[in-house]
Amino acid sequence: MLKRSTLIALGGAAALAAVAANAGDNTAYDYRHAAMELIGHNFGPMAMMAGGDIPWDDARMAAYGKDLATLTTIDLLRGFPEGSLGGGETKAKPEIWKDFEDFKSKLDAFKTEAAKLGPIAASGDRKAIGEQIGATGKTCKGCHDKYKEKDED
Amino acid sequence: MLKRSTLIALGGAAALAAVAANAGDNTAYDYRHAAMELIGHNFGPMAMMAGGDIPWDDARMAAYGKDLATLTTIDLLRGFPEGSLGGGETKAKPEIWKDFEDFKSKLDAFKTEAAKLGPIAASGDRKAIGEQIGATGKTCKGCHDKYKEKDED
Repeated sequence: MLKRSTLIALGGAAALAAVAANAGDNTAYDYRHAAMELIGHNFGPMAMMAGGDIPWDDARMAAYGKDLATLTTIDLLRGFPEGSLGGGETKAKPEIWKDFEDFKSKLDAFKTEAAKLGPIAASGDRKAIGEQIGATGKTCKGCHDKYKEKDED
Repeated sequence: MLKRSTLIALGGAAALAAVAANAGDNTAYDYRHAAMELIGHNFGPMAMMAGGDIPWDDARMAAYGKDLATLTTIDLLRGFPEGSLGGGETKAKPEIWKDFEDFKSKLDAFKTEAAKLGPIAASGDRKAIGEQIGATGKTCKGCHDKYKEKDED
């Protein structure tokens, strides 16, 4: 076991400070917010390219798809422990914890479709990419409609 | 190509809105902040377990190590494009873009050590895990000391 002083000397200080600073705060919110932020930074421009809102770029499409698929493999449920509704500016609804099995199944549906999107995004087949972006977007919507407060207009 | 209306119907709306809401904001800050947040949520408790600040848990150590290693594979440089210093509550220093090759080499050092930590964290060998947490922490510190404003006490 490393001594605390050794860890601090080695640079664990920032991590320890970050964790300590969060004591009493909603770390689950911070976690899920960060995860959804990164997912959105990848899926967002993919959807915009597919929709013609920004120019199509095969390399960026492939890179975003790869990172999106990668992000589905981290423990996204860590952001939604029982009792973690409050804090921050959460848009999570309490319904998440009323039917957690349903919430998990919707999260799994997203993970499945986003994981498929990874290799398809690198294929250069714009029709297939567009269709899989659509299929993935459906799973976003399927969960957000039920479990996330609507974004303001 | 999917029509914008189709994408919106399919659930791209939230992503499009999120991207639109960020127009003019520092999306690179949002990206890097989210990435570092997730990295910290994994490395932080690993360092605390190794330092005896929280109870050691082999399963959690392995899970955090796996996700930390996974997070090193996404495009972390996307958070640091030229000209992205301002905005948000960034602690990034302008020195990042004065010697970007050095910054990249320090980021690469972190990626290398954190990637090694993934499988070691699952080994159950507390001595080896502690040492690799130390080696990884050194790379955090090596970059933060030069390129990140100090956290407030």
